[in-house]
Amino acid sequence: MEEIFPPSNPDYPIRVAMIVEYDGSGYFGWQVQKTGVTTIQSVLEEAISQVANHPVDTICSGRTDSGVHACRQVIHFDTNARRKDYGWTVGTNTKLPDDISIQWAKEMNHHFHARFSTRERRYRYVIYNYPIPHSILRNGMTWIKYPLDHQVMHQAAQCLVGTHDFSTFRAANCQAASPVRTIKGISVERYGNMLVLDVRADGFLYHMVRNIAGVLIDIGSGRQPVDWCGYLLSLCDRNRGGVTAKAAGLYFVDAIYDSVFELPETPVGPNFLTWMQDKG
Amino acid sequence: MEEIFPPSNPDYPIRVAMIVEYDGSGYFGWQVQKTGVTTIQSVLEEAISQVANHPVDTICSGRTDSGVHACRQVIHFDTNARRKDYGWTVGTNTKLPDDISIQWAKEMNHHFHARFSTRERRYRYVIYNYPIPHSILRNGMTWIKYPLDHQVMHQAAQCLVGTHDFSTFRAANCQAASPVRTIKGISVERYGNMLVLDVRADGFLYHMVRNIAGVLIDIGSGRQPVDWCGYLLSLCDRNRGGVTAKAAGLYFVDAIYDSVFELPETPVGPNFLTWMQDKG
Repeated sequence: MEEIFPPSNPDYPIRVAMIVEYDGSGYFGWQVQKTGVTTIQSVLEEAISQVANHPVDTICSGRTDSGVHACRQVIHFDTNARRKDYGWTVGTNTKLPDDISIQWAKEMNHHFHARFSTRERRYRYVIYNYPIPHSILRNGMTWIKYPLDHQVMHQAAQCLVGTHDFSTFRAANCQAASPVRTIKGISVERYGNMLVLDVRADGFLYHMVRNIAGVLIDIGSGRQPVDWCGYLLSLCDRNRGGVTAKAAGLYFVDAIYDSVFELPETPVGPNFLTWMQDKG
Repeated sequence: MEEIFPPSNPDYPIRVAMIVEYDGSGYFGWQVQKTGVTTIQSVLEEAISQVANHPVDTICSGRTDSGVHACRQVIHFDTNARRKDYGWTVGTNTKLPDDISIQWAKEMNHHFHARFSTRERRYRYVIYNYPIPHSILRNGMTWIKYPLDHQVMHQAAQCLVGTHDFSTFRAANCQAASPVRTIKGISVERYGNMLVLDVRADGFLYHMVRNIAGVLIDIGSGRQPVDWCGYLLSLCDRNRGGVTAKAAGLYFVDAIYDSVFELPETPVGPNFLTWMQDKG
């Protein structure tokens, strides 16, 4: 794709994209808020601004909620500073607390937009399913103490695939213009005591993954029948939906762009799901 | 084994064993200290005392240092309270912060001693080996940014197997009576960007695993030759040893007792190493 922005002077703004990972446990979500609480975006913009030597505004692929993690959040910002790609990564990391880290950075052309260029987003929801809670990784999983049947949950979730009105799974204060989204794939798999719900869609409504998780947990525990998920979907009514599952186990794991933008391929996170499959 | 303690009255003390897991990030190690800092032992004894309705003193299999985690710390205490085994587990967990959890509890006979009955102890040290740090699980791994050759590290470590004077790997303020210990097995394996050092011994000196890790990291990076580890061992001199590796990646993963005590078998932790091997 050809660059459309003519560099009329040496200070012309460039666009930089970054892949950001964060442990959301200590933050009130992605977005800068008026009340002065600490958010990922505010901490990140302060760090990048120090590297750029001017105030920087960031755009992200998908805003995450309070306590939600990201393995591969994609952002962009415009700057007239000139740094090497690796310099943006390493420089910003030295200014960040260790629960947020830049994994990759690259100068992009101005056709790239972290939010509008995203073709597909992907979340994973990790459940620790055992009568007794775990202390290691406790902020990275949601603990469900009663037994869950992951095969029934997987089966129940398949009715969500395709283009639907997801009003049942949309938080009351969701600000999206339309409740229609397209789920491209959804699965529930078990690894020992751990369950992983994996959802790919063009986009997600506010609390959508956690509301889907809440319904599937009620089905997996046997409290609701397998066809309850499809029934709730057909009602298009949030008041009839299940509880919103906790934030702790939720990870924004991928944002997919046209291959022309050449974002690097990385294993789908969170990291602890990928390592054991790759013994060297 | 027959019980030697005669129950002369209904209040005779019983001995309870527990398996405890903790994320040590927020604590000044295991042991109660005079200075009033928060330790695993102090928080745990307060919780158990509430369940027992009297002050409880605990003995552990192996004291862990500041910031060190445990997947399977074994403790015991004596009490004249009567609770079901499961009641000790669930009751104590309700009194504990979520970074410490009881995984199992059982009334034992008085031959059992969490410290003196331990036949073998096992630690794992987890390294994240990549140029850029990770934010997810950052307190559960030690980040080493330069490339490490795990095969060379594994080879270098084998000279430590057997009964040796481990003075080189013993912290200056170690209070053990003898520097002699028997290492029964040691390995370094790679899983993608993660390295796992696994050591089994009859017991460990203060900082011994972290000092071994420090030496192996210097060998794995190529800064020192493969036979440097054996050379340092032969010197029996801490002042000639390498740096002490950081606490973050260290886990006390097992304490092994005679089978007569019937402790449950569990996968060797930390949990995130075990799940992916057990896809259901």
